[in-house]
Amino acid sequence: MVDFKIVSESKTTRARAGLLNTLHGSVETPVFMPVGTLATVKSLSPEELTDTGAQIIVGNTYHLYLRPGCEVINLFSGLHRFMHWDRPILTDSGGFQVFSLAKLSKISEEGITFQSHIDGSRHMLTPEKAVEIQICLNSDITMCLDECIKYPASFGDTKNGIELTTRWAQRCKKSWEENAQKENALFCVVQGGMFKELREMSADALGEIGFSGYAIGGLSVGEPKDIMLEIADFTLPKLPDTKPKYVMGLGTPADIVELVALGADMFDCVMPTRNARNGQMFTKDGTINISNSHFKCDTDPIDSGCLCYTCRNYSRAYLRHLFMEKELLAYRLNTIHNIHYYVNLMKSIRTAICNDEFEAFRNIYCNT
Amino acid sequence: MVDFKIVSESKTTRARAGLLNTLHGSVETPVFMPVGTLATVKSLSPEELTDTGAQIIVGNTYHLYLRPGCEVINLFSGLHRFMHWDRPILTDSGGFQVFSLAKLSKISEEGITFQSHIDGSRHMLTPEKAVEIQICLNSDITMCLDECIKYPASFGDTKNGIELTTRWAQRCKKSWEENAQKENALFCVVQGGMFKELREMSADALGEIGFSGYAIGGLSVGEPKDIMLEIADFTLPKLPDTKPKYVMGLGTPADIVELVALGADMFDCVMPTRNARNGQMFTKDGTINISNSHFKCDTDPIDSGCLCYTCRNYSRAYLRHLFMEKELLAYRLNTIHNIHYYVNLMKSIRTAICNDEFEAFRNIYCNT
Repeated sequence: MVDFKIVSESKTTRARAGLLNTLHGSVETPVFMPVGTLATVKSLSPEELTDTGAQIIVGNTYHLYLRPGCEVINLFSGLHRFMHWDRPILTDSGGFQVFSLAKLSKISEEGITFQSHIDGSRHMLTPEKAVEIQICLNSDITMCLDECIKYPASFGDTKNGIELTTRWAQRCKKSWEENAQKENALFCVVQGGMFKELREMSADALGEIGFSGYAIGGLSVGEPKDIMLEIADFTLPKLPDTKPKYVMGLGTPADIVELVALGADMFDCVMPTRNARNGQMFTKDGTINISNSHFKCDTDPIDSGCLCYTCRNYSRAYLRHLFMEKELLAYRLNTIHNIHYYVNLMKSIRTAICNDEFEAFRNIYCNT
Repeated sequence: MVDFKIVSESKTTRARAGLLNTLHGSVETPVFMPVGTLATVKSLSPEELTDTGAQIIVGNTYHLYLRPGCEVINLFSGLHRFMHWDRPILTDSGGFQVFSLAKLSKISEEGITFQSHIDGSRHMLTPEKAVEIQICLNSDITMCLDECIKYPASFGDTKNGIELTTRWAQRCKKSWEENAQKENALFCVVQGGMFKELREMSADALGEIGFSGYAIGGLSVGEPKDIMLEIADFTLPKLPDTKPKYVMGLGTPADIVELVALGADMFDCVMPTRNARNGQMFTKDGTINISNSHFKCDTDPIDSGCLCYTCRNYSRAYLRHLFMEKELLAYRLNTIHNIHYYVNLMKSIRTAICNDEFEAFRNIYCNT
């Protein structure tokens, strides 16, 4: 059974260090979860992921449902054996990607009808179906189907959205309780756009149903950063403090430090992986783009002092050469570094919380 | 100093097992050398290469000279540290790729003028320049510049070609003796097209100059396979038996077994790596293409009984899924398997030679 314990709390911020126990191992929070859309964190082997310190990854239900499909993944009793990853997996509900990728998606009380972005085939994603697919994936953490509200949206549309999200969450919980392995967990998603009143309503309604964890969806969808932080600041304390709090789809390293200060425990984002494939690398002195001609003869590692496999063994000159030549190894070495950067940031955050030095850590990190 | 010892000889064929000692370690022959064109064996890390059992790799002088250039590689005192590979490296002379890739290449007594296939810049590759670049790469084995004769070619053109190749080999040796580290080795390339008389002349002339190893170039350039084998069969015994004999740019697994029977010790070929990236995988039962829909639900590994990382951890269904989705991990896992297949074949060949069972091994391998 997935459970969550708080190990340490910052005295001057809402930051907390926790332990999330799952059937596939324990996860130290705050945690960053690399995104493994199609049963692979792009370019990495599971051993390399483990080597970066990654503890849990995210799979995308919409993508995996379409390809390779449950028919295939069922043969492996879920995603872990299929992709050779034996640590925890969280899967999203598929809703967000139906809205952003699929064609002609249409919402009704029953669910979302859509056409595949690959072959135009018609499908319907209901709360029950979203749970069913995630059970087939054998996710350690299943996410409820929610309505993802566009930005900007009217108060009325947003209110309708959170009410539907609540009814869908009820149906997800019922379906999950009837069908899922009890060792796994079901998390819900709080919506409400940029309206604090609706965020609170959504949090309260979902809290009453009761879930093993609470996510905040619908942030970083185009709103200014100060509004994103304001809504997170308002919403995070409305979620049950004894449960893990997950801010979905965020963010930059500095965003993550700020959101931890506001009480968030879990994060996922394509930024370290996608940017790596575009040559953008995170360093303690900010981001660099490895394609810069400046690095042509640079024998130093990406980030001096970094202990990742890439920095221990390769120079900027070599990484630039690989990247300019579009060599496959480039994407991997860049990705290893960026994920290591994020994972290492989370470790530093956690250590700072446990030593009650987090506020100082945040001040230094976000102001330099 | 590179030296070569014959450890065991087949009593019924010309196959022999040897040991080639270099500054960067010993190489058991017969050996297959994966091709690492641009300072990377496409998609693999050096550790993965080592894990497949690869003992030595090939670098391409033409490519490395153009990108990243000696200016960069000099900063790392050669290719080994630049690419994080501490085992032996053999580099070609660049000649073959000037002929096949560069624009407007033109041969004179002095060398080959050509335009880069990347930016059209003009360059001249002389025997001395080919040696100079390979010294900068710090190759364990440097290859002499040779004239690569097209197929088909007239007797007269081919004769002129081998005579030029001999004069260039003399210049390479002189330059190499004046400039190279004595721990490394210089190999020459026997040419002569499909004319036995010219192959013998080339072998004799180069043998008189004296090199640490002898390659056969200009095979598998479009001629029928029986002619390729006939010329190899004729030429290999003309090379000094105490030196390693290297058949360049070959071949299929069955070709390699046949060429070992004829006395060849060293091979390089892009087949296992390039075919892997196209989904073609070598197995004990022949080749398969992983994109075949037949494999969609196949939970078996690529080649049952294979001990490579890919076969130990992944199914055909997963590999097909990755390949169909063009996931970066696909190319890597396929390449690991194919190189392991080739390397493992060489190990089996060597064991068979040492046990004096090679002829039986060859009969079974090439007739099933």
